[in-house]
Amino acid sequence: MKLTKEQEQEIKDQQNQETSTKRVAAPELEKILYEAIPILDHGFIRVVDYMGNDTSIVQAARVSYGKGTKKVSTDSGLIKYLMRHWHSTPFEMCEIKYHVKLPIFIARQWIRHRTANVNEYSARYSILDKEFYLPNIENLAAQSQSNRQGRGDTLQGEQAQKVLSLLKKDAEQTYDNYEMMLNERYDGSVINENAVGLARELARMNLTLNTYTQWYWKTDLLNLMNFLRLRADHHAQYEIRTYAEAMLNTLKKWVPITYEAFMDYRVGGTEVSAKGKIILQKLIKGEEVNVDQSGLSKREWNELMIAFGLKDKLI
Amino acid sequence: MKLTKEQEQEIKDQQNQETSTKRVAAPELEKILYEAIPILDHGFIRVVDYMGNDTSIVQAARVSYGKGTKKVSTDSGLIKYLMRHWHSTPFEMCEIKYHVKLPIFIARQWIRHRTANVNEYSARYSILDKEFYLPNIENLAAQSQSNRQGRGDTLQGEQAQKVLSLLKKDAEQTYDNYEMMLNERYDGSVINENAVGLARELARMNLTLNTYTQWYWKTDLLNLMNFLRLRADHHAQYEIRTYAEAMLNTLKKWVPITYEAFMDYRVGGTEVSAKGKIILQKLIKGEEVNVDQSGLSKREWNELMIAFGLKDKLI
Amino acid sequence: MKLTKEQEQEIKDQQNQETSTKRVAAPELEKILYEAIPILDHGFIRVVDYMGNDTSIVQAARVSYGKGTKKVSTDSGLIKYLMRHWHSTPFEMCEIKYHVKLPIFIARQWIRHRTANVNEYSARYSILDKEFYLPNIENLAAQSQSNRQGRGDTLQGEQAQKVLSLLKKDAEQTYDNYEMMLNERYDGSVINENAVGLARELARMNLTLNTYTQWYWKTDLLNLMNFLRLRADHHAQYEIRTYAEAMLNTLKKWVPITYEAFMDYRVGGTEVSAKGKIILQKLIKGEEVNVDQSGLSKREWNELMIAFGLKDKLI
Amino acid sequence: MKLTKEQEQEIKDQQNQETSTKRVAAPELEKILYEAIPILDHGFIRVVDYMGNDTSIVQAARVSYGKGTKKVSTDSGLIKYLMRHWHSTPFEMCEIKYHVKLPIFIARQWIRHRTANVNEYSARYSILDKEFYLPNIENLAAQSQSNRQGRGDTLQGEQAQKVLSLLKKDAEQTYDNYEMMLNERYDGSVINENAVGLARELARMNLTLNTYTQWYWKTDLLNLMNFLRLRADHHAQYEIRTYAEAMLNTLKKWVPITYEAFMDYRVGGTEVSAKGKIILQKLIKGEEVNVDQSGLSKREWNELMIAFGLKDKLI
Repeated sequence: MKLTKEQEQEIKDQQNQETSTKRVAAPELEKILYEAIPILDHGFIRVVDYMGNDTSIVQAARVSYGKGTKKVSTDSGLIKYLMRHWHSTPFEMCEIKYHVKLPIFIARQWIRHRTANVNEYSARYSILDKEFYLPNIENLAAQSQSNRQGRGDTLQGEQAQKVLSLLKKDAEQTYDNYEMMLNERYDGSVINENAVGLARELARMNLTLNTYTQWYWKTDLLNLMNFLRLRADHHAQYEIRTYAEAMLNTLKKWVPITYEAFMDYRVGGTEVSAKGKIILQKLIKGEEVNVDQSGLSKREWNELMIAFGLKDKLI
Repeated sequence: MKLTKEQEQEIKDQQNQETSTKRVAAPELEKILYEAIPILDHGFIRVVDYMGNDTSIVQAARVSYGKGTKKVSTDSGLIKYLMRHWHSTPFEMCEIKYHVKLPIFIARQWIRHRTANVNEYSARYSILDKEFYLPNIENLAAQSQSNRQGRGDTLQGEQAQKVLSLLKKDAEQTYDNYEMMLNERYDGSVINENAVGLARELARMNLTLNTYTQWYWKTDLLNLMNFLRLRADHHAQYEIRTYAEAMLNTLKKWVPITYEAFMDYRVGGTEVSAKGKIILQKLIKGEEVNVDQSGLSKREWNELMIAFGLKDKLI
Repeated sequence: MKLTKEQEQEIKDQQNQETSTKRVAAPELEKILYEAIPILDHGFIRVVDYMGNDTSIVQAARVSYGKGTKKVSTDSGLIKYLMRHWHSTPFEMCEIKYHVKLPIFIARQWIRHRTANVNEYSARYSILDKEFYLPNIENLAAQSQSNRQGRGDTLQGEQAQKVLSLLKKDAEQTYDNYEMMLNERYDGSVINENAVGLARELARMNLTLNTYTQWYWKTDLLNLMNFLRLRADHHAQYEIRTYAEAMLNTLKKWVPITYEAFMDYRVGGTEVSAKGKIILQKLIKGEEVNVDQSGLSKREWNELMIAFGLKDKLI
Repeated sequence: MKLTKEQEQEIKDQQNQETSTKRVAAPELEKILYEAIPILDHGFIRVVDYMGNDTSIVQAARVSYGKGTKKVSTDSGLIKYLMRHWHSTPFEMCEIKYHVKLPIFIARQWIRHRTANVNEYSARYSILDKEFYLPNIENLAAQSQSNRQGRGDTLQGEQAQKVLSLLKKDAEQTYDNYEMMLNERYDGSVINENAVGLARELARMNLTLNTYTQWYWKTDLLNLMNFLRLRADHHAQYEIRTYAEAMLNTLKKWVPITYEAFMDYRVGGTEVSAKGKIILQKLIKGEEVNVDQSGLSKREWNELMIAFGLKDKLI
């Protein structure tokens, strides 16, 4: 991640602004406000604003006139209760806003979460930065053989080098031609004074999907947790997962009690189907179980055994 | 509106909390933060939190690294442009949270605006306050003869008194019986030590629709304006309009530039249909116009004439 | 539930209309289309339209050109997989529309589900039917002593009779006064020819919350399942649960494969927290467990034990 | 647009399925159901399902037991009234589903409309088709000089040819390398039997933004009109506008009465600000008007004059 001096200065200016407010605040989050936290090779996330903290959840759940809290222990118990019983609306009472820089193919996954507000940098209006995502060599994975939607082993040696070199060459060439068609370079300099440039809204179509874009993304705490639950999961594509993991850290600084309940009940928890429950009950009683009588598919059976660490029952 | 001493103290405590923040603030709104602004006979609105101000809109529209603004005049021009051309997403970058006390029949209109977050006081869990909306005598209007969904003249003398007295008597009686069924008064005292009370989730069904409820209601600036546009309009029912008007004042304190653009382009503006445009064009050219050749219905014709102050053309 | 002859005829007319369509259909659901299924004393649900069936989910998941299905067994496997892994978007591809008659206090719970489309009968515009919900005597429960948001034992004898009689009397009296204020009866007859009536939008505030209203309610399959999961649950208030249970039957007729997966993975399934997982793992290994070392609260411990039928471990 | 024989057959099979239903239908829309309507060079839209027609709007607005309509003329008046007064919920009672093939950079604009359901072809799971959008020569426009977000004159001769050739070459080369990295061609053939391929979720990042993708896209009538209003507008980018225009035709076949009202009140209509209203009123009275005293910016002034065909007042 490389910021221009002007961008660095703008961020510093924001960090130096101190205002007095009657609103509730999140002291740990304030410490990293506006900071650009690097992700992948050129990306970042920055928390640029927020509203509410753990006490806001309690306050709303109680429809309180005041701060809605007497003791931290009571608040914590209530928040855990709300999380465990899937009460959703109190968690919607907190809001957070990020500025994110990310490759376009990841932006396309991210935007599928619709209950958020988004302002994306417009390539109809402006020229995109000359920055592309090129994976680290250890993240260049082969197609998984077992899971059509996943990664297998890491590519080795020559093949890995070849992939990297193709990605780099194609991104650079298509970007160069993007500038050529625009008749303008990303720094604003004109290429041919005697020619006009292709409309930006058209030229952008020549860019590859690993080109970086950026946006402001704002969501409430409930929907942030829904996003993180899916995107910090090990099934998520590595690239979006790195963003989600950095955001988990900001969640912890913002609403520490909620974070703890979230890790216990959602991220670290699991779901058991009606049929799965019967299997577990038998196991607890010490009875024999087997896949054929379970009504579970092989895949489902293995998912259950893995969730409960029963490696000897894998089939 | 009557707050208990405990509630008043809770509000004061919140108003006295001063924190330092790096977030942007809205100084005029801070001045009235947490304050209970009285509406109708027992209702209120209180702004209890907010996020962002006018500069947040500009910052998001530009996907800026910094404050996103150099001169107020430029910001103002951009905000007006965004409003005029129905750009919606930058206005979603600001968020506000209200605590509202309101009669149930108004709450039922209000909740139709779905793009908001709501936590309502639970009558399954708690006993509702003994407070009902009784209109002022000047707001006791007859059914409109021309508009099946509106009000006509004010009721007079004896009839008005009778209506008021019925409303009062029925609300009080049903509330008394609500307490009786609960076997508990609103102050928590038990009525008959030897009896059990009906479940709260059932007893509440005996209350009338003018009973007050309360909720936390949070929305973004775009959806707040959509709400205010409809509910501060003269077609809206008087009771919800009084809430909307008080909220318009908070909008002005929060985002003064946006407020001005909103009043010009939305509240004070009008829409003209394709057929209406032709009529106006003829009028500007000094040509004769009449309803029969216009393709407009009588009602539509009159709506157009009223919008442009052409009373002599009313039919 | 009592329909007027005119209403019965309108329903019959709809049921007799047969059109040819190229759209996919749900034969079992067609059989009960438009039928008013009675709920509580005066309520009903009617399926009035739908779009898609089980094959639509498969078709969308595959972004197929055709019907998106070869064998029922493959479809079923895919739908189960999607349900198990919380894939949400394919289930959004089916849509259903209900006409529902329900008491206002239940309508207020129901409307909290925001991702649906609603048109409610307008009491600003029309006079509400003279129908109130009066519980059956076996549903008149006392307030629960253990759960502030639930029901305990059924009220007995005299007390039950008294509650019923209060509910009936208050509903009738407030309705009579509603008519009086309107100067019009629910059948349209004027009460006093020489007087004007109070505006409908005001008079309605005198009605009690057990008065019936009605609406058209349309939602997609995903959000219908979210609704049913919460509202057919035993924690839900009895009155809304009866609606949810009747809707579960319509779900089964509409999308039988999805219904089965829903019952297995959602309704009949359970969630286990990270801490709960450790307890279950110990139980499976035959180790001793106890609440003090578990990190679980007493309540949480009991919820886990109940979920897995371990009554001897209850504390 | 080129469909494989298998795809053509799948479409024909769907078109040949005739079912009897009690649901309301839209006869004109049935005629083109499933048909792939070509857009741009390789794109298409297909209506694959729908729910409701004009009568459904009327039925919901009246919360009717039956068809909700007596005479077409009454229905038409009611629909116009609802449209004119921005009643939104009755229009949400109809639903439509499209299968769309479109370039990725257009898909990125399209997805900004969040109130729709989407299932996109997954490039994590499958290989994308070898199809890229290459504009017709008459659509190769220069960047607009006056509007940073628009197009100016068409590019001429050699420059146009060069742009086209760059777009074609880059798209083909990056696609070839995509296949190379996957070690698999789009027809499924393996390139090098002794090598493994890069994971699909990674290889896709090498594709250019004019590569075609496809999705199922479902929305309700209200949100479809919001989409069309913005995307069929002359400010919209040409490429998405061609999709919107084709969809306008399907709207007309589906709900002809609503379509007419939509064209009159939304598409052909205009909005006038509070300040603009004063200008028009003066013009109607024959008074002098000028920009300096109007409170309007030059740009705003011109937008108003153009809207009302007052070319002589342009500044």
